[in-house]
Amino acid sequence: MHILVTNDDGVQAPGLLALAQEMQKLGKVTVFAPDKNWSASGHVKTMERPLRVRETRLADGSPAFTSDGAPSDCVALPLLGLLEDKIDLVVSGINPNENIGHDVTYSGTVTAAMEAVIWGVPGIAVSLESGNNHHNMLDYSTAAAVGRKVANKVLKDGLPEGVLLNVNVPYLSEDELKGYMITRQGLRVYRDALDERIDPRGKPYYWIGGETPTGVDEPGTDFGALQAGYVSITPLQLDLTAREAMETLKSWNF
Amino acid sequence: MHILVTNDDGVQAPGLLALAQEMQKLGKVTVFAPDKNWSASGHVKTMERPLRVRETRLADGSPAFTSDGAPSDCVALPLLGLLEDKIDLVVSGINPNENIGHDVTYSGTVTAAMEAVIWGVPGIAVSLESGNNHHNMLDYSTAAAVGRKVANKVLKDGLPEGVLLNVNVPYLSEDELKGYMITRQGLRVYRDALDERIDPRGKPYYWIGGETPTGVDEPGTDFGALQAGYVSITPLQLDLTAREAMETLKSWNF
Repeated sequence: MHILVTNDDGVQAPGLLALAQEMQKLGKVTVFAPDKNWSASGHVKTMERPLRVRETRLADGSPAFTSDGAPSDCVALPLLGLLEDKIDLVVSGINPNENIGHDVTYSGTVTAAMEAVIWGVPGIAVSLESGNNHHNMLDYSTAAAVGRKVANKVLKDGLPEGVLLNVNVPYLSEDELKGYMITRQGLRVYRDALDERIDPRGKPYYWIGGETPTGVDEPGTDFGALQAGYVSITPLQLDLTAREAMETLKSWNF
Repeated sequence: MHILVTNDDGVQAPGLLALAQEMQKLGKVTVFAPDKNWSASGHVKTMERPLRVRETRLADGSPAFTSDGAPSDCVALPLLGLLEDKIDLVVSGINPNENIGHDVTYSGTVTAAMEAVIWGVPGIAVSLESGNNHHNMLDYSTAAAVGRKVANKVLKDGLPEGVLLNVNVPYLSEDELKGYMITRQGLRVYRDALDERIDPRGKPYYWIGGETPTGVDEPGTDFGALQAGYVSITPLQLDLTAREAMETLKSWNF
């Protein structure tokens, strides 16, 4: 089995290394990740400029490819033929923050897995609910082991067509995990605020600031599972049709 | 009524001007659009750098705001308080290509309308199926008039919570339109191909090239409606949960 590992934090991120090392237990691994951080940069297809690809090494000395494209480009390039060997699975992560609720269309981690599904390859996004722990000091071992177990299952049983898995792992040891829960996408509560500042030349500039987002703690959701100490596995699809709304709209006259 | 008009092609794009002029027939219009083209750049929240905002004018002399942020940033900034007046509706477009099927998570036009819905404001994306017509010579009048009719309906009747409208308009005169169809998101068929080239210094670089995408012509879909000469109106939601797949996955053991 040949597994492509990518992320949205850049090829030197420790979460990528932890994930790649666990995936090596399941088969051949190719790492192909962006050369910079693309967090919250959405689902990208770079068409207005060409992309560069170069070989590099992870912190453990293992070889990797990196590109100046987005995470989804780092999935598209190999799937379009940059790598000769067929790819059986794309795993993206480990993101140092959870990706839940409305995060999924912003998230480079999740949209990399979406890109895989668009090209007919199963995709898994793995994210860690790290809370207030410092990102430079995170222990990715539980999330990496969870990622391996989910990937192993997907390699054996496959995924329904057009479906990717959005996996979120609480910041606990494997022993402390309550278990695995299949969840629906919950409601994210963003607490963004506009932060206007004045530059040294007297002109305004704006940060999208505010508090860390939270979520609505409902049973059966991604956020609810994490709150209860479970790994959350949400199957996502790329069909965004609001089917209930279709009936309402069909009564409209133009 | 106060309508925010944005796009993903940049503040000087003719599709934006055509849309803004039609929206002025419905109420007060504020134009707030990116200072460059963000096509296929996905759903972005710019958090790693501050954003600049400046005032400019459209080709008809009317005032507009522009920012170095993405389309979704151009929606978030005003909704987070950069504009004092409450915004009742966000309309994004007119994109010079249709946004159908899997395009919706890549599309800056559509993700701008997603951003509106996240902040609790109705959002509409308007795109034109321009086919092989040259982008610099497009007639946006039909699409702009359609956008106005849909916006007028939304201002009067509202939209179900969490739903945005993805409107695609065939390249026909208003008289030639067959009508309006409420559709589901169809299947996009991308025909991307890797185009490897060698730079003047002998190093490779890669374009994501290939043929223009097409779609699966099924009745009831966005693509099917356009093929039949209808305006396609697809209600989209931000809940991507693949509910059918949940049952399958619940049988998994870890």
